[in-house]
Amino acid sequence: MNLSELPTPALVLDVARVRRNAERMQTRVEQMCARLRPHIKTHKCVEVARLQTSARSPALTVSTLAEARWFAARGFTDLTYAVPIEPGKFAAAIELARECERLALITDDADISAQLNAEARAENVKLDLFLKVDCGYHRCGVEPETPEAFEIPRRIADASHLRFAGILTHAGHSYHSRSLEELRSLARHERDVMVEFAAALRGADIAVPVVSIGSTPTISTVEHLEGVDEARPGNYIFFDAFQATLGSCRFEDCALTVLASVVHRDRTRRKVVIDAGAIALSKDRGAVDADPACGYGRVLDPEGLDLNLRVSSLSQEHGIIDALDDALFDQLKVGTRLRILANHSCLTAAQHPHYNVLEAGRIVDRWQIQRGW
Amino acid sequence: MNLSELPTPALVLDVARVRRNAERMQTRVEQMCARLRPHIKTHKCVEVARLQTSARSPALTVSTLAEARWFAARGFTDLTYAVPIEPGKFAAAIELARECERLALITDDADISAQLNAEARAENVKLDLFLKVDCGYHRCGVEPETPEAFEIPRRIADASHLRFAGILTHAGHSYHSRSLEELRSLARHERDVMVEFAAALRGADIAVPVVSIGSTPTISTVEHLEGVDEARPGNYIFFDAFQATLGSCRFEDCALTVLASVVHRDRTRRKVVIDAGAIALSKDRGAVDADPACGYGRVLDPEGLDLNLRVSSLSQEHGIIDALDDALFDQLKVGTRLRILANHSCLTAAQHPHYNVLEAGRIVDRWQIQRGW
Repeated sequence: MNLSELPTPALVLDVARVRRNAERMQTRVEQMCARLRPHIKTHKCVEVARLQTSARSPALTVSTLAEARWFAARGFTDLTYAVPIEPGKFAAAIELARECERLALITDDADISAQLNAEARAENVKLDLFLKVDCGYHRCGVEPETPEAFEIPRRIADASHLRFAGILTHAGHSYHSRSLEELRSLARHERDVMVEFAAALRGADIAVPVVSIGSTPTISTVEHLEGVDEARPGNYIFFDAFQATLGSCRFEDCALTVLASVVHRDRTRRKVVIDAGAIALSKDRGAVDADPACGYGRVLDPEGLDLNLRVSSLSQEHGIIDALDDALFDQLKVGTRLRILANHSCLTAAQHPHYNVLEAGRIVDRWQIQRGW
Repeated sequence: MNLSELPTPALVLDVARVRRNAERMQTRVEQMCARLRPHIKTHKCVEVARLQTSARSPALTVSTLAEARWFAARGFTDLTYAVPIEPGKFAAAIELARECERLALITDDADISAQLNAEARAENVKLDLFLKVDCGYHRCGVEPETPEAFEIPRRIADASHLRFAGILTHAGHSYHSRSLEELRSLARHERDVMVEFAAALRGADIAVPVVSIGSTPTISTVEHLEGVDEARPGNYIFFDAFQATLGSCRFEDCALTVLASVVHRDRTRRKVVIDAGAIALSKDRGAVDADPACGYGRVLDPEGLDLNLRVSSLSQEHGIIDALDDALFDQLKVGTRLRILANHSCLTAAQHPHYNVLEAGRIVDRWQIQRGW
């Protein structure tokens, strides 16, 4: 099947770019003497996970227990669930931990580590638990200078049914960088904060088995990873318009597009409407700090050529593309196919049931996306 | 099962409110002597469609061919697919039209009506086709004063394998109203434009079987529907924070919430993080014109009491609630359950695999949501 035969809207994955992105990150992290534990929240797909892990080290990071169950059942049994655990998920996590070689959880809350230990004791399992650290993003995590940053790991290490897995952070604030220089500085900071904190913990006689960091912008731009054991980037496998605007990649590295059809044209307003709306694209605005006009995605032709247009607004099943010049307007009839380069590939992929796998101009396969919780 | 036992995040549907919203709209439209053809894009769920249609008139509007197939296979065979048809969907639409009592399509393009007629002739079927009219929203549709507004219906009526079904509009610009008065004025305008245009077509000897209008804000507030045959509101079945802010409903009419758990708390920043993020809630901003601080949803306690807080920002699996006072912060431990009243219920529902049906404080059922295209 080729792109003109695919019903629209449809998610299209350029598998040559996925392979290239996978190899480049694998090489980069290995050269920096760290281990790659990619975050699969970007793709939620077993076939993509196989492309981005080596057979000898199929370690993954997940964002939901549904992802953990799905991947564990398909041979990926070394997992980190990287959202802070809460009591409503203890039973499901313990059930899953029994089936895994290792399912590590994360927390930044002293009460939770105590409650989890009690539950693990009652269930007669021993659980791996990371301390989530705030390296400046201020979403979750303890700040390294605070008493609790020492108290929680000590409690975990002393607990009868927990193993202190190490310290883990995510420099999500790197997504708000306005320049490559700012991004590189944040990447250095993410690493330095964690390496210094690990040294402080070790100085306080707390063993730190793993120092884990990661975001695609910082791992793509950091100069070295000395003192870091593990990197957890996710988005790099597809990249997107946001990452290209930030400087983590080039536009030609972006692997994920949504194929759409023109359903309406308006000569007076020089606009067309496509059948990819808020559900097919997601309403993520992308890199608004760096590019206020980013809209809801960049418009490409079916061969991937950038037409220098954006999807300017979205309703549920309609996307609006305006500011067309005469020549382009005349080409875009109802039924014309376009490809929309996602602003944020993680959110766009999660809107679809499967990838249509594009290789050498043909759709060669369909890969399932595991959504839900 | 009660709300404290449901794994989070989870979509919760208050079925008593759904029934009340369904009955109120049914009565309202019947009293105005029009027929209700609800738009099921809001819920994509057969059980909800049964609650909102009478057994003698199970007519629906759909936004995707996947919805059309799903509902047709479950007894709803009088359907209008209310996104302009494009050639890539002709074959699927014709296949489905054969299985339906009536599947009406819409267009605003003269070339498309000719191409569709040729395809219908080749397939030996006769298709119902509406003219999509722009009543001021300027998303899709022909403007009633233009030559094509008369030429397209005439071509459809004269085509060998098409039936001219009538004229159809959607006053989507009603969602940008800043006051109830402005909304009522738009509602009058939507109706008047269509009634006058139908008269003009009839004056030009073009029979207009059906005048179809509809949006939840306008149908909820219009004074009468004289000259209108059919109303197609959709959102009213759940309503949401957007509609309540606009004045289409009261907050206590809103039936859809997302149950979430606190996963992180930060005393310094007076904020908590919940496990409902951009995927569980959607990134729809809601009624930003009328309420710039609307955020990504209103925060309720498990019983539905409004805590007067908003979800202020979202990442993939994290939602941030800030500006907490001391008393509330002390109550919100990791694991505490909250319910988020969606800004835009259509987009939030489409993020989930099923509804957890809440009745008299208990989860009594699970209803499937038919997503995709």
